[in-house]
Amino acid sequence: MKVAIVGLGFVGGSLARDLARRGTTVLGFDRSEAVLRAARRSGVVTRALDATLAGVAGADVFVLAVPVTDAPRLLLAARPHLKNVGLITDVGSTKRSLVRAAERLGLGARFVGAHPLAGGHRSGWAASRAGLFHGAQVLLCPSFITVPESVERARAFWRSVGAEPALMEADEHDARMALLSHLPQVTSTLLAALLAEARIRREDLGPGGRDATRLAGSSPAMWTAIALDNAAHVTRAIAACERKLATVRRAIRRRDAAAVNAFFEAGNRWFGAD
Amino acid sequence: MKVAIVGLGFVGGSLARDLARRGTTVLGFDRSEAVLRAARRSGVVTRALDATLAGVAGADVFVLAVPVTDAPRLLLAARPHLKNVGLITDVGSTKRSLVRAAERLGLGARFVGAHPLAGGHRSGWAASRAGLFHGAQVLLCPSFITVPESVERARAFWRSVGAEPALMEADEHDARMALLSHLPQVTSTLLAALLAEARIRREDLGPGGRDATRLAGSSPAMWTAIALDNAAHVTRAIAACERKLATVRRAIRRRDAAAVNAFFEAGNRWFGAD
Repeated sequence: MKVAIVGLGFVGGSLARDLARRGTTVLGFDRSEAVLRAARRSGVVTRALDATLAGVAGADVFVLAVPVTDAPRLLLAARPHLKNVGLITDVGSTKRSLVRAAERLGLGARFVGAHPLAGGHRSGWAASRAGLFHGAQVLLCPSFITVPESVERARAFWRSVGAEPALMEADEHDARMALLSHLPQVTSTLLAALLAEARIRREDLGPGGRDATRLAGSSPAMWTAIALDNAAHVTRAIAACERKLATVRRAIRRRDAAAVNAFFEAGNRWFGAD
Repeated sequence: MKVAIVGLGFVGGSLARDLARRGTTVLGFDRSEAVLRAARRSGVVTRALDATLAGVAGADVFVLAVPVTDAPRLLLAARPHLKNVGLITDVGSTKRSLVRAAERLGLGARFVGAHPLAGGHRSGWAASRAGLFHGAQVLLCPSFITVPESVERARAFWRSVGAEPALMEADEHDARMALLSHLPQVTSTLLAALLAEARIRREDLGPGGRDATRLAGSSPAMWTAIALDNAAHVTRAIAACERKLATVRRAIRRRDAAAVNAFFEAGNRWFGAD
């Protein structure tokens, strides 16, 4: 079994480590030559691919692990070499645009987009580690013409690194992620930006504040790509935040204890229903 | 040494446990009879006080550990019995209004407000535990006439349970807390409230999203009191959030990658500067 991975950052690198550990041959590419060299030296990547991605031709599985706005371009670049590749997948945090790109590129039958819910705020090859996907949910988004065999291959592939696959339609995925992943990222960054302006450091915060700002450490390049790629859903979610903040701000200003309490109660009820 | 604690919730209860463990006699009051009974039965509270708080008279230290909007009223109730009490303090998350109340009640000389940065999202006697303050910062806010002996007593008192005291002016405390504590609470609750509306559960979130929403589990009564008591600073901080969200939302809508990246970069820089 041979797997080609394009992008050896935190997620792509961690996937490569898990696969190498199980004896899978990993063909790797990263636009950073230093990262590619380090991945080769560590023995995780068996063979380095060049920028033409021609070496992908020999792989059973092709995985894109690059910022989501770069993924369609790299899928196009790899296309000439994908004829005999049984499964084409990725690890991006948005799914609609890449699923649509795969369909338009004539790769839809073998394409199953994947979004492993693992990672947190770390980034880069140096932070990657084996075991990242163990017990993590991975959302699988087929195209409208993906064949059942490809879906089964995707399930087996992600299960082999310990993840728990679940199918989801790409549009629904992006709408849900805007709320459950992209919005927490935006509010963590928001808090961090305001604290920076007030010259308050992270070490000044209590444990709760530190938890609330942990995601601010995430990769700006990755999150810029996600926000732009999922712009419609993300801007709608941010607008909903603005409205709710204005509502609670006005309730506090007019000392409306019942309305303020209802706000905190709604959050507490949600938390407790876990 | 005798310490009277009014309010045996998570913070007051944890303080009582630490003191009892060191052999201090704890006189306790809670408006819940069940909590008061449990605290007596556990041996943490040596003597239960009644609602007149008359028993406070025999204490060396008096600690208010109730929601911040209840604290001035209880300080007034306790006043007739505080003549021989060497230190009057509290554990509230806002400081200005109680410090001012102590001054107006003629208790300023012996009053040192305290805010231990410990707790997180738990609440209630049942969640209280010994060791909560170990290594935690505690911000001490004297009144404008607090005598140096009282400040020294407050330092020694909080050090005795493992906390690290630091002095801060009450107004500055409340302004800083609006940003570094109250705002993270508001954004966590905000996320939780929006996720509840979308019927997304906490277990659907990845680790980062769970961190960002942990504070939503905090006590609604406590946070309603804090938001109302610190209304001026909190509403200003929320308004700053709304402005920054509107700015990044517009940048995403017009696909301004540089502006969106600058937003995430600001948060990432702050995080990395830790």
